[in-house]
Amino acid sequence: MSDFSSPDWFTEQCDNTGSAFSLRIEHKVVEKQSPFQKVEIYKTTDFGYLMVIDGCTMVSSRENFLYHEMMSHPALFTHPNPKNVVIIGGGDCGTLREVLKHSSVESVHQIDIDKLVTEMALEYFPELCDKNDDPRAHILFADGIKYMQDALPESIDVIIVDSTDPIGPGEGLFNHAFYTSCLKALRSDGILVQQSESPILHQKLMKEMRDAMTDVGFSAVQTIPFPQPIYPSGYWSCTLAKKNGEFGVFRKQDAKAFEQLVEYYSAETHQAAMKLPRFLAKVL
Amino acid sequence: MSDFSSPDWFTEQCDNTGSAFSLRIEHKVVEKQSPFQKVEIYKTTDFGYLMVIDGCTMVSSRENFLYHEMMSHPALFTHPNPKNVVIIGGGDCGTLREVLKHSSVESVHQIDIDKLVTEMALEYFPELCDKNDDPRAHILFADGIKYMQDALPESIDVIIVDSTDPIGPGEGLFNHAFYTSCLKALRSDGILVQQSESPILHQKLMKEMRDAMTDVGFSAVQTIPFPQPIYPSGYWSCTLAKKNGEFGVFRKQDAKAFEQLVEYYSAETHQAAMKLPRFLAKVL
Repeated sequence: MSDFSSPDWFTEQCDNTGSAFSLRIEHKVVEKQSPFQKVEIYKTTDFGYLMVIDGCTMVSSRENFLYHEMMSHPALFTHPNPKNVVIIGGGDCGTLREVLKHSSVESVHQIDIDKLVTEMALEYFPELCDKNDDPRAHILFADGIKYMQDALPESIDVIIVDSTDPIGPGEGLFNHAFYTSCLKALRSDGILVQQSESPILHQKLMKEMRDAMTDVGFSAVQTIPFPQPIYPSGYWSCTLAKKNGEFGVFRKQDAKAFEQLVEYYSAETHQAAMKLPRFLAKVL
Repeated sequence: MSDFSSPDWFTEQCDNTGSAFSLRIEHKVVEKQSPFQKVEIYKTTDFGYLMVIDGCTMVSSRENFLYHEMMSHPALFTHPNPKNVVIIGGGDCGTLREVLKHSSVESVHQIDIDKLVTEMALEYFPELCDKNDDPRAHILFADGIKYMQDALPESIDVIIVDSTDPIGPGEGLFNHAFYTSCLKALRSDGILVQQSESPILHQKLMKEMRDAMTDVGFSAVQTIPFPQPIYPSGYWSCTLAKKNGEFGVFRKQDAKAFEQLVEYYSAETHQAAMKLPRFLAKVL
């Protein structure tokens, strides 16, 4: 990464995509190594705090709402009545906070392997953690792969895989074995949703993910693109997988009524995202 | 820009937003100075060719379709029957090519001040210029501000301002005088559309643009966000202004029938984009 070494900028250089993104920093606040990964916090000049894990930008104060809303609400409004939700990863608690906005939800279990991420979030992104004391929230630090293996069959309505990229600790969350565990643990109308990288840069990974989901028995998959400025290309996605049946409808009236609680998600955005842009449909 | 000097990467460093974006390059192909600006072409490792004007990334082979489609089709499908179109700027001819896909269009005049941009596009982005010989296309090299001042009143259906940022040659395209010329030149159901920068980074500029458009007499404005990986934040926008009446409808059936001709635009995308995300609506 020596090309971009600078005391004034943090740069995520992506060698596999030939692109890089930088934020100007006031200073590095802290750097800690957990048993799993290196977590850094920077104070940026224009994006608030920035969390970096193993060199990759994860969360900035300014624009994380785009990611957290789109990881949560399309899946939750596609499910007819989501009560029990599991988040695998998501240690910054931003997705948890969005899920807890849904009044139908009775329990959310957040399973991140690395306590350090949540400790850092509590200190530098307290706004993401302001629902952590909700009695419906259960924050566990454990191996999400094992958690899903051990989950009771037909016990979960929505599983949200809010992980790092498929290298390092996140790797085991992108394969047939994990998806099989998820499928078993979901109730009949259950939905799995996972972050699926950039529609421009990572079409191969996205296709492999979708194929693996249908290979293990999910009946339908749907990829939803959204803007995410600090991730490579500024254009990101999640992919939903349905245990049974097809996509095509969601609780649109409920989504409309919810719009005062969110900054980006809307019923219209959701509706539009259900149709893949042609450039992406052609390769998936 | 010394922070990012590297022989292997081209970096656009934005000091006013505290962010930077880089593409890895194989080599710089050419650099030429016109009377108006410096134009560079790079061969990148992953994005094809890259055109840079005065240090700012303008067009890459890989993802320019996002920008060119969204600068053209929302405006053209909002107009009931666009026949005469003017493009101010747009020297790379990518917007021209999109406009010419519309069978209702009888003439398109493209007015870019800098012939060098089109010469570079013809050589390194020939796919954007493949409609330049269409008999409906009129490619002029002239001052767009003066062109609009001199335009016959009520002679144009859609004006597309596809310019650089509001510094340098593009500056005069972002003010009351220019918008007044446009308003006069548009027919009664005419529409002006202009690139309006990043919904995340440039909300002040966007608000000023919208206010100026309504100040001079446009009856309604509508900002449409879209992904654009090589521009700051990867999230960009255009703003439409209507001479008379409100937004709210567009030729949806025609847009649906058109979807085989485009890679990103769709009737659903257009429909969704008509509702601003809440974070943006609050500040505009």
